[in-house]
Amino acid sequence: MRVDLLIENVLIYNSYFKRFMPGNAAVLDGKFLYIGKMGAESFEAGDVIDGQGRYMIPGLIDIHLHIESSMITPEAFSHALIRNGVTTIVPEPHEMANVFGLEGVNEMIKASRNCVADMFYAIPSSVPATSMETTGGSIEIEDMNELLRTERIICLGEIMNYVDVITDPDCKTNQILKHIRESYPQLIIEGHVPKLLDLDLHQMIFSGVDSDHTHQTIEGMEARIAAGMFIEIQEKSMTSEVMDYLILHDVSEHFCFVTDDVMPDSFQRRGHLNHIVRKAIRMGMEPEMAIYAGTFTPARRMRMHDRGAIAPGKIADFMLVSDIRDLTIEQVYKRGSKVYDVIEPYKPKANERAFPQHFYESVKLAELTETDFQVAAETNNGPDGRYMGRVMMVKDGSTFIEEHQVEVEVRGGQLIWQESGYGLLATFERYGKSGNRAYGLIGGDTIKRGAVATTYSHDNHNLLVVGHNEADMMLAANWVIANQGGFCAVDGGEVLAGLRLPVGGILTEEPLEQTAEEVEKLLDAMKSLGYRHYNPIMSLSTHSLAVSPALKLTDHGLIDVNKGKVIPLLVRAI
Amino acid sequence: MRVDLLIENVLIYNSYFKRFMPGNAAVLDGKFLYIGKMGAESFEAGDVIDGQGRYMIPGLIDIHLHIESSMITPEAFSHALIRNGVTTIVPEPHEMANVFGLEGVNEMIKASRNCVADMFYAIPSSVPATSMETTGGSIEIEDMNELLRTERIICLGEIMNYVDVITDPDCKTNQILKHIRESYPQLIIEGHVPKLLDLDLHQMIFSGVDSDHTHQTIEGMEARIAAGMFIEIQEKSMTSEVMDYLILHDVSEHFCFVTDDVMPDSFQRRGHLNHIVRKAIRMGMEPEMAIYAGTFTPARRMRMHDRGAIAPGKIADFMLVSDIRDLTIEQVYKRGSKVYDVIEPYKPKANERAFPQHFYESVKLAELTETDFQVAAETNNGPDGRYMGRVMMVKDGSTFIEEHQVEVEVRGGQLIWQESGYGLLATFERYGKSGNRAYGLIGGDTIKRGAVATTYSHDNHNLLVVGHNEADMMLAANWVIANQGGFCAVDGGEVLAGLRLPVGGILTEEPLEQTAEEVEKLLDAMKSLGYRHYNPIMSLSTHSLAVSPALKLTDHGLIDVNKGKVIPLLVRAI
Repeated sequence: MRVDLLIENVLIYNSYFKRFMPGNAAVLDGKFLYIGKMGAESFEAGDVIDGQGRYMIPGLIDIHLHIESSMITPEAFSHALIRNGVTTIVPEPHEMANVFGLEGVNEMIKASRNCVADMFYAIPSSVPATSMETTGGSIEIEDMNELLRTERIICLGEIMNYVDVITDPDCKTNQILKHIRESYPQLIIEGHVPKLLDLDLHQMIFSGVDSDHTHQTIEGMEARIAAGMFIEIQEKSMTSEVMDYLILHDVSEHFCFVTDDVMPDSFQRRGHLNHIVRKAIRMGMEPEMAIYAGTFTPARRMRMHDRGAIAPGKIADFMLVSDIRDLTIEQVYKRGSKVYDVIEPYKPKANERAFPQHFYESVKLAELTETDFQVAAETNNGPDGRYMGRVMMVKDGSTFIEEHQVEVEVRGGQLIWQESGYGLLATFERYGKSGNRAYGLIGGDTIKRGAVATTYSHDNHNLLVVGHNEADMMLAANWVIANQGGFCAVDGGEVLAGLRLPVGGILTEEPLEQTAEEVEKLLDAMKSLGYRHYNPIMSLSTHSLAVSPALKLTDHGLIDVNKGKVIPLLVRAI
Repeated sequence: MRVDLLIENVLIYNSYFKRFMPGNAAVLDGKFLYIGKMGAESFEAGDVIDGQGRYMIPGLIDIHLHIESSMITPEAFSHALIRNGVTTIVPEPHEMANVFGLEGVNEMIKASRNCVADMFYAIPSSVPATSMETTGGSIEIEDMNELLRTERIICLGEIMNYVDVITDPDCKTNQILKHIRESYPQLIIEGHVPKLLDLDLHQMIFSGVDSDHTHQTIEGMEARIAAGMFIEIQEKSMTSEVMDYLILHDVSEHFCFVTDDVMPDSFQRRGHLNHIVRKAIRMGMEPEMAIYAGTFTPARRMRMHDRGAIAPGKIADFMLVSDIRDLTIEQVYKRGSKVYDVIEPYKPKANERAFPQHFYESVKLAELTETDFQVAAETNNGPDGRYMGRVMMVKDGSTFIEEHQVEVEVRGGQLIWQESGYGLLATFERYGKSGNRAYGLIGGDTIKRGAVATTYSHDNHNLLVVGHNEADMMLAANWVIANQGGFCAVDGGEVLAGLRLPVGGILTEEPLEQTAEEVEKLLDAMKSLGYRHYNPIMSLSTHSLAVSPALKLTDHGLIDVNKGKVIPLLVRAI
């Protein structure tokens, strides 16, 4: 019998018995035709590989992640995935959707169409994240309908507004859920339901949301599984308690591994989903179980019945691994074709401008001046003097921002933030819509001098500038504006580091290798300015994320996240 | 919080941990809202039930069966299912499809639309079963396309022609499979692949067929599971070896229980899928595992993500059971409404004529005469004399028919079967198409005197008459013709038993109870005529099934099933 490829003498991972079985595998038309003892004597193969006793495992499948977290475009992302044995992903492009709405999603899908790794998209369900910010676009119910008519959509992405869903029957998210349940009853709905338990949790599932990828505890995980939820374990859930629970209990059908957000430097240094699987093995999970959760269960959760196992009829995405506990990838195959070999050069392809021209012209701001960082005091026409004002307090280890209240001075109608002992956080609406700008005071583990500006500011991606003097803030901001997006760190009138993100102001078309290098320089620069956070980029980027507690800044002003409203910087005169 | 129903104090089956958990369950809008410790103090319930510590298990789900095997119409079938705790089924109506083609399938679907049990249909994939018979209808690729546009279709039914699929790339079944893979890549394809192993098996799966419900052996089952197949265990697979294998190995995700064919008397006496689950428990399977295979895995196989478990958001189909090992059903609920209670009368509803008028006029045959049972010898104009002729030899324990060759006499151009020591099997095409008729000799464990006639003859359902004298054969045949289908047993000019099957000549609209009683009378009558088979009805009904070895009779003539061709009754002159 003619086949395209025959791999002989391998230890083949069998997903159904969760064990390795020695044998051969034959591939025809990009799919596995046969797995077993028969070999070259039975098949006339276009290509025969001697596996030399290596492990053959299915390509990894990551069903919850945001490409934008890695700051690169789908093509470069795919290229980096393949080297790490990840052959299928389900990205949720809510960052690009915040910048360009439906078009942002469609262009991400388009940009991934010819990638080696298969990308099936989740519809962003919460764009914009709140009504207290200006974004470039939004995803409405009619946009979802349009997306659901395209072929690359696989699920409704993480429903985040769980409080609304439970407490407000008429909220936008409940309207979306109702519409999806009625019009697309088979659609998978992904969830983001941290901490919920008992009736709250069950109400969330009743509304259609039956997965969770947030930080897990034993109690929460057990309650979720018992209620029929599928658990997506990301790195922050991989505590020894959670891992021991997964190892010791018969719950292998109910969870998978995901990456969610991988920064470019981490992606480059540690890898992608393979890093998570490897880490699980190092934490005591048998390789056979860890591989299961990186291949079979994610495929089944997304109802991708054509992959996730090495079996007849399944797409021939696989890798050959020498050390199974270390997950040492030697070769990667996609649809039966070799796409990576550790002993061959794996050069990034030349970058192309894959997006429409206006995707490179999305930062619609004129050059700023130093006066743009002088803050008119909102005193309700009150007099100059001393006031109690709110300060956003950054804390290492978290993206949550606490509110402190401190004495500040208003002089000549201006908030004299420069003498407050705190930095200024400024944001400028950059879509040419409202022209809004807003200011806050900032302290804690952020920079102590100079300035950092970025358009990579979740989820609205307006221009965000933190700094300690107007000149550096202006310089950093203008560098970002001139480059149509990115990051810039400045000190004493000098650019310390700059990261260009010209696609929608949030992505670069450079390869991962180069982006990771620039990110590391940027991180160094931010740290040299005094940023004491374990991840300064993520920390700064989420200062504008008005769904994450407790005090954030959008172009509408300071946001009391728990109350869901805009509040003034100045609290009262003293 | 308002709910419609609250069931308190029950041991609730949790499908995810495969164990019973004490608690309460709240139902809203026909779905489970909440499962846990909260009770009447938290919910304002329209109805509160004290479960008195009984077991609460999901409604059973049977994903492979033929309603026609029970000879009743969907409404009566549903009524009988509910009493047995079966709340969802996936019937494959290839019998009705053989009689009426696409319309037969559509009318079965229509007839089941208002049934209490949910019925999702499998498209019959092999109608007609062979090209060597005349049927009332066929199912072609364009019929499949039309069916796939209707909402009640859930899968492509059992692909039976496995030899063709493997050996003949251009056969009709491969054309169907190619079309389905290309046009409906997500469609579930069910299989019928007895005995296949290794490359043959893998080729079958490669072609898209990834389940099997035929008789299982350990070796075959292990090979199927390893290759990614889902196993549907029917009663004949429940040998102690197979059951021990299922009990002792970690394969619970890979199989479910199904009924396939349940005769009316067995349905009435022993039950339905509940009988299979109960039998599994009696054979040593833990109730928690047997229930899993009767609820959760069948739902998942058919991608019915809305049912198969008692969990938030799932359809509230469940039953309350007092003795879990005996599966003693006390109440059954469908979408949260009680539909059966052991202490209340459960009377069959009045029957209605649910089908179009021509469904009751499908036996298009004029009254027969005794001469219709006189057989002109096909001697190729050879002389009268003695010939070697073929005899179909019926054997208890099987539906296979062996070929014997015996001496017969031709006199006056007629086959003198009456003096041969064997019976005559005659078939008359009854759709008003070809007017074909064909004859064979029959012996072995069949009747020894009198006659039996039926239109319940798989899969073509032409009139089939077996007998030992022309008068009784004529009488039996004419009773069936006059009643527009059914069974009739005659001896010495007297009707011993008659079973009317006026819907398409294969179903009755009488309730199960009455049908079962009539079937038992018919079986008694057939046995009184000397039928020595464990199931005379099934035996006779499959004399015309030209896909089952080895010598069968259709209106085209005697069929050599293994060679797939029509062969003459007379072999040679002697």
